[in-house]
Amino acid sequence: MVKRKDVAKLAGVSEATVSRVFNNVTPLREETKRKVLDAAKQLNYYPNAIAQSFAKGKSRNIGVIVPFLPKIHLLSTYYFSEILSGIGMKLGERDYGLLLLFQPPNEKKDYVQLFHKQKVDGVIILGSQDTPGETESLNKLHEQGFPYCLVNQTFANFPFHSIDAQHYEGSYAAVSLLVEKGLKRIAFLNGPMRFSNSYERFAGYKDALKEAGITCSSNLLFEGNYSRTSGLKTAEQMANYMSEIDAVFSANDRMAVGLIHGLSELGYQVGQNYAIIGYDDSDIASLMKPQLSSVRVPLFDMGQQAAEKVLAMLDEGIHSPTQVRLPVTIIERDSIQMSEKEMD
Amino acid sequence: MVKRKDVAKLAGVSEATVSRVFNNVTPLREETKRKVLDAAKQLNYYPNAIAQSFAKGKSRNIGVIVPFLPKIHLLSTYYFSEILSGIGMKLGERDYGLLLLFQPPNEKKDYVQLFHKQKVDGVIILGSQDTPGETESLNKLHEQGFPYCLVNQTFANFPFHSIDAQHYEGSYAAVSLLVEKGLKRIAFLNGPMRFSNSYERFAGYKDALKEAGITCSSNLLFEGNYSRTSGLKTAEQMANYMSEIDAVFSANDRMAVGLIHGLSELGYQVGQNYAIIGYDDSDIASLMKPQLSSVRVPLFDMGQQAAEKVLAMLDEGIHSPTQVRLPVTIIERDSIQMSEKEMD
Repeated sequence: MVKRKDVAKLAGVSEATVSRVFNNVTPLREETKRKVLDAAKQLNYYPNAIAQSFAKGKSRNIGVIVPFLPKIHLLSTYYFSEILSGIGMKLGERDYGLLLLFQPPNEKKDYVQLFHKQKVDGVIILGSQDTPGETESLNKLHEQGFPYCLVNQTFANFPFHSIDAQHYEGSYAAVSLLVEKGLKRIAFLNGPMRFSNSYERFAGYKDALKEAGITCSSNLLFEGNYSRTSGLKTAEQMANYMSEIDAVFSANDRMAVGLIHGLSELGYQVGQNYAIIGYDDSDIASLMKPQLSSVRVPLFDMGQQAAEKVLAMLDEGIHSPTQVRLPVTIIERDSIQMSEKEMD
Repeated sequence: MVKRKDVAKLAGVSEATVSRVFNNVTPLREETKRKVLDAAKQLNYYPNAIAQSFAKGKSRNIGVIVPFLPKIHLLSTYYFSEILSGIGMKLGERDYGLLLLFQPPNEKKDYVQLFHKQKVDGVIILGSQDTPGETESLNKLHEQGFPYCLVNQTFANFPFHSIDAQHYEGSYAAVSLLVEKGLKRIAFLNGPMRFSNSYERFAGYKDALKEAGITCSSNLLFEGNYSRTSGLKTAEQMANYMSEIDAVFSANDRMAVGLIHGLSELGYQVGQNYAIIGYDDSDIASLMKPQLSSVRVPLFDMGQQAAEKVLAMLDEGIHSPTQVRLPVTIIERDSIQMSEKEMD
């Protein structure tokens, strides 16, 4: 295991200087700081000792960051409630408290101060987005060796600890399934690209169409924000293109529900005018008529594994960055069956 | 406002003794303690100063107690997720953290120690039950003047702070509605009586039948534990009495869903063989076919008001115990319409 003295040697500074850099207490020359951080990175050094020193006054709370969105019953959504249930299960077993911390999505984050204030022993981050401010704050958390884990967000250029799902593969499989059913003109209702899983779904969609020799028309690309309302609003735009659409791939079930409702009001029915497949396999999918096909994401397990990971970091220290991807499953239901008349 | 010296005078002890009782630091004779607590109760004295002294090291966290039930995705249930969304909304607005604390339902609780450990500035208690251990722990919290609030549980003999709903009225109205539809033989699937709202639902059910001149047969009383599985299991028992049953009143929607599913497997269908009304008006109620009638409980508002109440106690001190009851609304849907043939 890499020690403080190894970093000091490579950076050409004293061990005390290494500590000062990671403790962030005394002012240091930018150049010295850079040298130490570069050496630490090169050696894969994680200053557990520092995290441990804060942990002396252990709170036995794990912080869970969730976006604060006024007027949205966020915790009532299948997505957040399943992840939280999984986290809660693990923390409950180990007698840890789950500290929900609400953060307005567009405010500057400072995750490290949560540790300095001794509010938490570790942190799990939901709803993280690929923005410069967010990346900077996560990088600080990572470099200073605090126990943390992202859920359902992966950063292409940073080795942040994360538990994610195989969204590229899931989207590829969902779109390929529609193609196999003879549904070739496939509209895509995606979420914002600042979420890595929107980006990955788009890549899966594009590649599946390409593989099938289908040209992806930009007319058939729509964007919502993963809410039911955004699906409902999209119906009006999509209605203009229904003569060009055989099927819809929706990046989550909530948007699919809104879209189905909106299109129905405008005279377009699932199974008669179009097929649809959602994503997440939330509890409503099987309760709808026709039942909604979907891509099952193991959100509960992802929450459990994120909590396990953070607790393991507390118990055993942080050894190396890990990105975990859990598999997803296609759940085939009635919403991708077109009535025979229409398929003639 | 009642002061410490008033309590000292009435109890016939020194002011320091009063403080010692409420601080719970030094050992005291049981008799002295009793005298002081009785005097405090008689005068409606709440030792805010003590709560404030702990609050000096404010955590800016509000604790939310939830039952720890392994294998149950508790936070994914409509009931808990809506209350938590409401709490979270208020706390998020005021920049407080929500500390979820999981407590195994059958373990001895010690709510006061949460304050001593300075983990929380106030506490909101969900899933509280009327058991001797629970009552004792709540009484300590109450007498020592800590900011707290119960949600959806009222204790008949203790003036604990609570936000509840009008469950007696809701149940009375639900059962009366079935009677008005000509459905007179009404089975009742209730939850356990240690929850005050089960008790209140039973009282509303009984009184509505009595008012209508209908004798309530104990054959038609069933008990589950508010889970879907318990509703499913009840189907087997209820099936033996279906010839005596016109309608079912279920104490929540989750049990209703399980029951409907179970009865359907055994050959009994809603609208043909029986009518049914649930409780909570969860999101699934309107998605089912036929749509489930239900009693809408303002769970989100209850969560918001509980958080507001605890924050107000922190800001302004605790003046007097308050029990709030929010109104509920009957939501009539297809599940209480019998097909005409059956009603002949």
